[in-house]
Amino acid sequence: MLRGRWLLPGVSLALGAGLGAALTARRRPEPEPEGLLSLLPMVPAVAAAGPPALPELTKYGLPGLTQLRSRQSYVLCYDPRSRSALWVIEQLNRDSLSGASDRAACDFQEDDSVHEYHRATNADYRGSGFDRGHLAAAANHKWSQQAMRDTFYLSNIVPQNPHLNQNAWNNLEKYSRSLTKHNKNVYVCTGPLYLPRTEADGKMYVKYQVIGKNHVAVPTHFFKVLILEKEAGDIELRSYVMPNCPVDEKIPLERFLVPIESIERASGLLFVPNILKRTNNLKAITAGASHS
Amino acid sequence: MLRGRWLLPGVSLALGAGLGAALTARRRPEPEPEGLLSLLPMVPAVAAAGPPALPELTKYGLPGLTQLRSRQSYVLCYDPRSRSALWVIEQLNRDSLSGASDRAACDFQEDDSVHEYHRATNADYRGSGFDRGHLAAAANHKWSQQAMRDTFYLSNIVPQNPHLNQNAWNNLEKYSRSLTKHNKNVYVCTGPLYLPRTEADGKMYVKYQVIGKNHVAVPTHFFKVLILEKEAGDIELRSYVMPNCPVDEKIPLERFLVPIESIERASGLLFVPNILKRTNNLKAITAGASHS
Repeated sequence: MLRGRWLLPGVSLALGAGLGAALTARRRPEPEPEGLLSLLPMVPAVAAAGPPALPELTKYGLPGLTQLRSRQSYVLCYDPRSRSALWVIEQLNRDSLSGASDRAACDFQEDDSVHEYHRATNADYRGSGFDRGHLAAAANHKWSQQAMRDTFYLSNIVPQNPHLNQNAWNNLEKYSRSLTKHNKNVYVCTGPLYLPRTEADGKMYVKYQVIGKNHVAVPTHFFKVLILEKEAGDIELRSYVMPNCPVDEKIPLERFLVPIESIERASGLLFVPNILKRTNNLKAITAGASHS
Repeated sequence: MLRGRWLLPGVSLALGAGLGAALTARRRPEPEPEGLLSLLPMVPAVAAAGPPALPELTKYGLPGLTQLRSRQSYVLCYDPRSRSALWVIEQLNRDSLSGASDRAACDFQEDDSVHEYHRATNADYRGSGFDRGHLAAAANHKWSQQAMRDTFYLSNIVPQNPHLNQNAWNNLEKYSRSLTKHNKNVYVCTGPLYLPRTEADGKMYVKYQVIGKNHVAVPTHFFKVLILEKEAGDIELRSYVMPNCPVDEKIPLERFLVPIESIERASGLLFVPNILKRTNNLKAITAGASHS
């Protein structure tokens, strides 16, 4: 019965089939501007005139900018539209992996630093069939209870297939940690992907589920980029993509290696230019081949 | 034959049905790191050790941050994943609407300020069935040929249904301009929406087409938020959503008014908190009702 209706929170968008479209805005209660009013500083309106200029143009603010969160265990870039992160970076080494931190002392928690309109809640995940999958992994941060607790903010969590979370993806996380044995530092960048595919009509579509009242986006895939800092100072790059579905954990991890360019194109992110600012000794590992 | 295959540029991701998944990374030619190498400054690797800290953690850069573009006619926030803008703000008044600028002297052009991996090209639109629809409208910037030309960057363009672009959406743009008659300034913020809907399985999905070699995202809907600055200084807000399909232009524009909160929730953006920093005299107009 709900099929075919686009969901805009608080509004019913009924689309005419082919010919045209009607849009009905339902009256709804005032969305509590009092709450916002009470939180925000009041500045009287400033008189302004003349031709457009930047300060003038942005007089009433910029509606969205990068939302960085820097915590003990990671730096995260939040994506308010998907209610999750665009990317999360961690630094692993022998020191950060040792410690007595207890996972049982950690609870998944809403990230209050995110506006309530754009925040995932535990209720969104309940009954969804998806795990609350960590982007920055809890077991990477045994060095500090607070650092481990930081990984349980729902801003660091994505809806993840339970079998994937508990098997192949977990193996990739373990493998990332094992690399600290032979590297000075392992920088790990993890994030969601929303990949297109061609459908029966020959056109390409991106399609992903959203869960809960807050429409938390379910990624089609995940990427993990490992930047290995060797003792000698040179850099090795290993970049992986796994689909958000039950992945046979017997498939060797090397099979999930992809060229970094693939992740850069699909995610809208850039890794290589940043690394090349730091070193001219970069080796990129892809399945069955190593480029230098 | 391509059906069911996820598209990751340069890689073929073949998904096993239900049981598991296989991922095959095809060998491909080196993705021209020489190009990047030649463009970027070379800094020798810096030795580093110790427990994680912010400067250390971000040693190899942050893979993605806000990409603002400030041009004569608008301020734009680019979304490298969708190859288009998240939002564009313009300022309209009687001055900016008058002038001799000629649309015929403008050509749609790639935005060279965007990395080539994340940039739309004219070829992406060719044969797609979609218009190159302006977010900041060309006719809003007759005051300067350069300002008008700025609106033809493909970063200010989205794939738009031709009937919508040429009729109902065009009427909304004309209406925005007409509001300068009785207001000191009209601030216009325009952007794409990717709205979910419930499918036959009872779950909610976001689904949108991508076009061309660069996978330019086709929004399901568009929003336009009008911030009207009255002569007396008080502010009126009118926020519209239209679906990206043929919309009957006989439907009155008021029918497309939605509560601003709906756009804020769906887009991941915030307008009201910013406006309330400037004025405590904000009136929001929604269909058939005016809240104050």
